[in-house]
Amino acid sequence: MSMSSRFSYSLISQDGLARAGVYHTPHGDIPTPIFAPVGTQATVKSVTPVQLQELGASLVLSNTYHLYLRPGEDLVSEMGGLHEFMQWPGPILTDSGGFQVFSLAGIRKIDADGATFKSHIDGSMHRLTPEKSIDIQQKLGADIIMAFDECAPPNDRAYNEQALERTTNWASRCLQAKNRDDQALFGIVQGGVFEDLRIKSAEWTARQPFDGLAIGGLSVGESKDEMHAVLDAVCPLLPQDKPRYLMGVGTPEDLVNGIRRGIDIFDCVLPTRLARHQSAMTLRGRVNMLNAANARDPRPIDETCACYTCQHFTRAYIRHLISAREMLASTLISIHNLYTLLRLVRLCREAIIGNRFDTFAEDFLSQYNHPKHEKL
Amino acid sequence: MSMSSRFSYSLISQDGLARAGVYHTPHGDIPTPIFAPVGTQATVKSVTPVQLQELGASLVLSNTYHLYLRPGEDLVSEMGGLHEFMQWPGPILTDSGGFQVFSLAGIRKIDADGATFKSHIDGSMHRLTPEKSIDIQQKLGADIIMAFDECAPPNDRAYNEQALERTTNWASRCLQAKNRDDQALFGIVQGGVFEDLRIKSAEWTARQPFDGLAIGGLSVGESKDEMHAVLDAVCPLLPQDKPRYLMGVGTPEDLVNGIRRGIDIFDCVLPTRLARHQSAMTLRGRVNMLNAANARDPRPIDETCACYTCQHFTRAYIRHLISAREMLASTLISIHNLYTLLRLVRLCREAIIGNRFDTFAEDFLSQYNHPKHEKL
Repeated sequence: MSMSSRFSYSLISQDGLARAGVYHTPHGDIPTPIFAPVGTQATVKSVTPVQLQELGASLVLSNTYHLYLRPGEDLVSEMGGLHEFMQWPGPILTDSGGFQVFSLAGIRKIDADGATFKSHIDGSMHRLTPEKSIDIQQKLGADIIMAFDECAPPNDRAYNEQALERTTNWASRCLQAKNRDDQALFGIVQGGVFEDLRIKSAEWTARQPFDGLAIGGLSVGESKDEMHAVLDAVCPLLPQDKPRYLMGVGTPEDLVNGIRRGIDIFDCVLPTRLARHQSAMTLRGRVNMLNAANARDPRPIDETCACYTCQHFTRAYIRHLISAREMLASTLISIHNLYTLLRLVRLCREAIIGNRFDTFAEDFLSQYNHPKHEKL
Repeated sequence: MSMSSRFSYSLISQDGLARAGVYHTPHGDIPTPIFAPVGTQATVKSVTPVQLQELGASLVLSNTYHLYLRPGEDLVSEMGGLHEFMQWPGPILTDSGGFQVFSLAGIRKIDADGATFKSHIDGSMHRLTPEKSIDIQQKLGADIIMAFDECAPPNDRAYNEQALERTTNWASRCLQAKNRDDQALFGIVQGGVFEDLRIKSAEWTARQPFDGLAIGGLSVGESKDEMHAVLDAVCPLLPQDKPRYLMGVGTPEDLVNGIRRGIDIFDCVLPTRLARHQSAMTLRGRVNMLNAANARDPRPIDETCACYTCQHFTRAYIRHLISAREMLASTLISIHNLYTLLRLVRLCREAIIGNRFDTFAEDFLSQYNHPKHEKL
């Protein structure tokens, strides 16, 4: 199926390669650049949908692999689709299941047609093909759905050549299989750290009638320089009038470095995962909230932050919750961490619109994790 | 110290022995009868203060024993007291630590002066006396604080006689020790299941300059009939112009049965503890949310309920969260369970004011856990 007329990307402002825009979807507008909180199992861990709205989330991601295995796409569909099921009224993106099949599940067999794998939950055998992935994602009903791709180890040339061939072939089959016009289908550029493979993949994918383009297979073990080289090679080849999504990334630095190279959409489990490990994110670096220095600290996690957590709670209280193994610790730190990344992309967007993104990015990167702030 | 002028109980309406009133405190008015959610470690488990406010909580309880051991009353005091520390703007009640010392900690020695015990956290040795308990509670800064008492096994006569003597003696010392006038001190009636001991304790406690009266040592293994007999014997002896608090109780039936006998205040960990064990409370009985019957059920936990959880989420979704071990399950069920008990006391209050409490109570009790509703 060709592009859906129910989605469109408006470029508001460009500053260098950095873009500020709006992606219009049936469930609302997404200001870009944007960071998407991850709700792997149809819930952003330890946060309610209302809390997510209050902290300013726009796009939320959920995982096809997980929802296919539990509770199953038919049940989600019966319940009115993912928006109704998880009660997220805004835009949702589902990945294709590809990444999880190759990273979480026990792969049994990959062939030209698809992948057979073992569930990480109960060891049962399953098979995903491009058609099956699209079918599941159509039943889940997210606004943005992803082509089924093969994620290869980033530095293995021979593997990446073969995987790219399959990914390309599967992308065509995904375009064929998709038939809902209230969903946008994004293609995925693969090719590991190999510039020529990435260029080949980007050029081919850019020519297909996808609604948006994603860059996959990064933040999986390659160096930052390698990641940046891939973005430098790929982004200029992507169409200006479609959104670009850097999958599974990342850290505050990754966001700024990605935006600088022309990325519009990011997602990552980092904010909520770090929260469950007592680590708070700030625009200067991470803070281990269990650190003894916080025990009697009456300050919020971040004195410059306007999130619910920072507007109400002291470091001392949050540290107490962690020591006492109270679930509220995860909730409060998750709210703060998600807010911090959403705040960062908002600051980036304002800087792009104000034509001062380069200065903003330089300042940000020079202050992030600077030794002078390491006590933060 | 005598009664604090900063607290007062207004009786609005009486229907039989059931009372509807308002307890005025420095942190706001408490409509009675009321159920107090328990925030053992300065947090009502898995619920934020804003969520607590939204579900209609008024009085919140916290535990002296736990906060004394961790993070320590001095730290809480340094952070501005318990209201500031946990960011609960409404009234707070702290227990004396007595119950936990006798139930949770390893008791080493009880003497006329106090109790020596072993921390359940790290095995360290500690000592609580009436003076120490009041000192801790004054540092914590709750609105309502409790006399330090000895909780005896309810059916051991000799033990209860001795414990009551100590409790009486300790109560006088608590009255002596207390010196903050922005805190109300409640005395506790003890005496196990023994009517004569309970009457003796009630008569003595009622004569003391306490701001309110509590009934302790119930819901600890005695039968429902024994609990009701104690309430029948004690309540008529308590002053009309002070609030009456039935400690650690309870279930929906216990609330209605207590209110019917003249109780104003209840607290219990049940709603949040049941939530963590996948059990939802309704005005008809409990629902095991993990039950397979809920897997494809598009209804909320309780179709008559106006809580955030029931207004948004299906049983199917909540069951999915439980199966997937997602923390949000605890949060959503906790919100619902707390709302249900607050809804129940509100319905009781309206029935008392409308002079139809007996009918309400009969109807409620005849429908609660009725076989016809057991599928609920």
